[in-house]
Amino acid sequence: MLLKVKALQLIAGRPIAIIHEDTAKWLNLHVGERVRIKRYDKKQEIVAPIDIAGSGTLLDREEIALSQEIVQELKLRNKEIVDINPALRPLSVDYIKKKLHGEALTFTEIFTIVSDIVNNKLTEAEVAYFVSGVYLNGMNFEEITSLTKSMVKTGHQLNFHKKIVIDKHSIGGVEGNRTTPIVVSIIGAAIDELGLNAIFPKTSSRAITSAAGTADVIETIAKVEFSIDEIKNIVNKTNACLVWGGSLGLAPADDKIIQVERLLFLDPEAQLIASILSKKLAVNATHVLLDISYGKGAKMPNIVAAKKLKEKFEKVATNLGLALRVTLTDGSQPVGNGIGPALEMQDIIKVLRQDPSRPLDLENRALYLASELLSFVLNISKEEASKTCKAILESAKAFNKFEQIITAQKGSLSKLEEKLALGKFKCDIFSERPGTITEISNKKMSKIARMAGSPADNGAGIFLYKHVGEPVKKDEKLFTIFAETKEKLSYAKKIADRIKPVLVK
Amino acid sequence: MLLKVKALQLIAGRPIAIIHEDTAKWLNLHVGERVRIKRYDKKQEIVAPIDIAGSGTLLDREEIALSQEIVQELKLRNKEIVDINPALRPLSVDYIKKKLHGEALTFTEIFTIVSDIVNNKLTEAEVAYFVSGVYLNGMNFEEITSLTKSMVKTGHQLNFHKKIVIDKHSIGGVEGNRTTPIVVSIIGAAIDELGLNAIFPKTSSRAITSAAGTADVIETIAKVEFSIDEIKNIVNKTNACLVWGGSLGLAPADDKIIQVERLLFLDPEAQLIASILSKKLAVNATHVLLDISYGKGAKMPNIVAAKKLKEKFEKVATNLGLALRVTLTDGSQPVGNGIGPALEMQDIIKVLRQDPSRPLDLENRALYLASELLSFVLNISKEEASKTCKAILESAKAFNKFEQIITAQKGSLSKLEEKLALGKFKCDIFSERPGTITEISNKKMSKIARMAGSPADNGAGIFLYKHVGEPVKKDEKLFTIFAETKEKLSYAKKIADRIKPVLVK
Repeated sequence: MLLKVKALQLIAGRPIAIIHEDTAKWLNLHVGERVRIKRYDKKQEIVAPIDIAGSGTLLDREEIALSQEIVQELKLRNKEIVDINPALRPLSVDYIKKKLHGEALTFTEIFTIVSDIVNNKLTEAEVAYFVSGVYLNGMNFEEITSLTKSMVKTGHQLNFHKKIVIDKHSIGGVEGNRTTPIVVSIIGAAIDELGLNAIFPKTSSRAITSAAGTADVIETIAKVEFSIDEIKNIVNKTNACLVWGGSLGLAPADDKIIQVERLLFLDPEAQLIASILSKKLAVNATHVLLDISYGKGAKMPNIVAAKKLKEKFEKVATNLGLALRVTLTDGSQPVGNGIGPALEMQDIIKVLRQDPSRPLDLENRALYLASELLSFVLNISKEEASKTCKAILESAKAFNKFEQIITAQKGSLSKLEEKLALGKFKCDIFSERPGTITEISNKKMSKIARMAGSPADNGAGIFLYKHVGEPVKKDEKLFTIFAETKEKLSYAKKIADRIKPVLVK
Repeated sequence: MLLKVKALQLIAGRPIAIIHEDTAKWLNLHVGERVRIKRYDKKQEIVAPIDIAGSGTLLDREEIALSQEIVQELKLRNKEIVDINPALRPLSVDYIKKKLHGEALTFTEIFTIVSDIVNNKLTEAEVAYFVSGVYLNGMNFEEITSLTKSMVKTGHQLNFHKKIVIDKHSIGGVEGNRTTPIVVSIIGAAIDELGLNAIFPKTSSRAITSAAGTADVIETIAKVEFSIDEIKNIVNKTNACLVWGGSLGLAPADDKIIQVERLLFLDPEAQLIASILSKKLAVNATHVLLDISYGKGAKMPNIVAAKKLKEKFEKVATNLGLALRVTLTDGSQPVGNGIGPALEMQDIIKVLRQDPSRPLDLENRALYLASELLSFVLNISKEEASKTCKAILESAKAFNKFEQIITAQKGSLSKLEEKLALGKFKCDIFSERPGTITEISNKKMSKIARMAGSPADNGAGIFLYKHVGEPVKKDEKLFTIFAETKEKLSYAKKIADRIKPVLVK
């Protein structure tokens, strides 16, 4: 049936086609049933569930209203003619039911599900059934491998045609743990120094539950959103980048699945593994370092759980032919002094500049991870790699590489005071007793920083003066909260007083 | 924030609020996040997820577009002012996660989930997680009892203030098994005859996967959609009714859950039990007959499964203080001659009129169920009950009661030939060999009848000449397909030739 497009600029977060009630009757379609939509003269089509509009309001009888997602995907203009037909129930629904019943899926079945997710042929509820099946029944190694491959194949890939493509990922939940920009800068400088045929094209995410993600932090001083071609240009210039991966369409199924998982804060292990490895495969990484943090409040509650996850990652990576090194690090407390975009960027710059007031815990972690990576890439001893990395950091070569990347990403290190200005409103939190700090909760710190405005407000967040094991006096400052409005500061302060993120004994 | 309603008459199958992108920014809301909506001067509020409209198309900055569901629920008019506020994530999400983890839920937790479902506070994906949890982990008897009670409490109830309130339900999947109108007529006549202080207010559903539901069949000659007050009037007049329960709001949570289950054809046992018993509790039934059909192609595949389900129903009914009698009947083939609304109504009228050509299998089943009910209600022997029911059916008292009910429901038994006219287009299907009929598939018959136009086209369906065990000659008629258009007949014929619903050996 031919209908005229009415482009509503409706952002529905999913493809939605609204048809007139007469059209619905004619096609014998009910709300939530699916139609295939294509430009009458083109092949590409998209499947969308329908809503129905009554007479005389939104739509004329010969019109169809489409959500933004469809309009963009099919490159439609207002009043253009589209052909719509009832769509059959996708086959993937049967495979999802099979998984829900606890049966293992074949590669073809998993690929069909993933590809239907990417092409919006499944509703959120159907994706939720898939997530439930994977969450409750797990996936075997073959299935996780298939899931990872399917996620890569259904998305864009970044091919740099380089011998060595380095990547890293942290599984954390550890606040302030902003090692990535430092590690990329050290390794990027090492690539130049040693004349390696290698690159480190790092894509990161924005914060979901934490106070800041690497992309949020870099964004305080440079752009992070680029097209694939632009990223290739940046990497060609500098051998590295620090960009946001979100809009590149690398393993896009992953994002859609995560969106549904987030409703219930689910994170099935199979999905976690596939999610991370698919992004690495999509950039054709040859050497991947995976850092798993463990400890109270971190994603992995203890070292036993962290080791189990390490083994699973290694097994799936072997299946995929991906060279992976896994490190395990203590994640029981925030790292560095700053929590929040500008505060974390200040920490990073202090470390790269070797400022005397730099946070040494952040520096040591970054050096440890960089050394592991270099020893992995060059197949040299950890001692030797560590010496090289340290020398690069101390000699300002890492800082220069960082500046080079920031410049390539249309940013600069000038006017830092302005760009990294902290929230005008602040308040100090003091220790109520003398003693030793026994615990600093990542989750509570994240909550306070977010109440204060992180990551949306650049200058909002927390400056931590102390770490676990350090002594404090009564009424000594534990941390300062920064916010850009009085209200946000007062919310954050109130919550800090109530949940007490720092334990002194 | 105060906004002006723009009523779109948008039927979305779920509450949806569309706000302007500037409003979304102002309230820091993203697509899919929820808002509370109320008329500025009223208390009642509704929670809905948001979509966002771009500038200059659908909405002005100060407007909010609401789907039909919200407009009706809050009794809003166009341009009325509503107050919207960001809504917190409902508590029920945590309980759903608990169920997904296999933990048993308390009454309060189940009630919260069910009530949030009814109030549209949960998205379809969240309901899908709940269904997955119940489907994969099951529910214990306490939980099923809580689920049933919660479904009743969150809906309307029909209170007739009668000593005896009779109800029945069939769990079938058996095509043509239209015993309900006959049983209601027999028992209705018995109530009059014996001067019982009893009523039989039967609410039925329309077909979902079968060729016709009781409501579809009654609708061929009378109205089935009434308000609660109208139903009370009908029952006051006739002591019985045969109405559609769909719009009465009895246990409305059930309908919403079923909608999500249908996506994957799931039917968790706990939900099945709660679904049926909640509808009986909502009409304050005191005597409920539950007929479970078993056999190849029926919902229960064999008598062992049927008996297990019977025991579970009995246990939950005991928990609920509901008097329940369960019968088990053979459901391995269609019942009667007709499949489809008009064809089934013809069967019913033939039985009630005691027409010599009436389908005896349908009559015997209806008599069996009516006798079980009467023996249950009066606490008399099955023989005695059976004698009474038979006499009522043979004496035309059942027919008169049926006519009385149909008249009370604004229908009549005049012009039956016109109302029950069969599709103009028909074709006969013949046996390809001589032998004995060994199998007639319910599912295949349903598929053919639906392809022919059932239940939307009244006159579409199948007339079955033979049943299992009967001999046939080569080229003898097995069944006739009726359709209202040539195309539908040709589809149905094609599918009948391919799937062969009748086996002759």
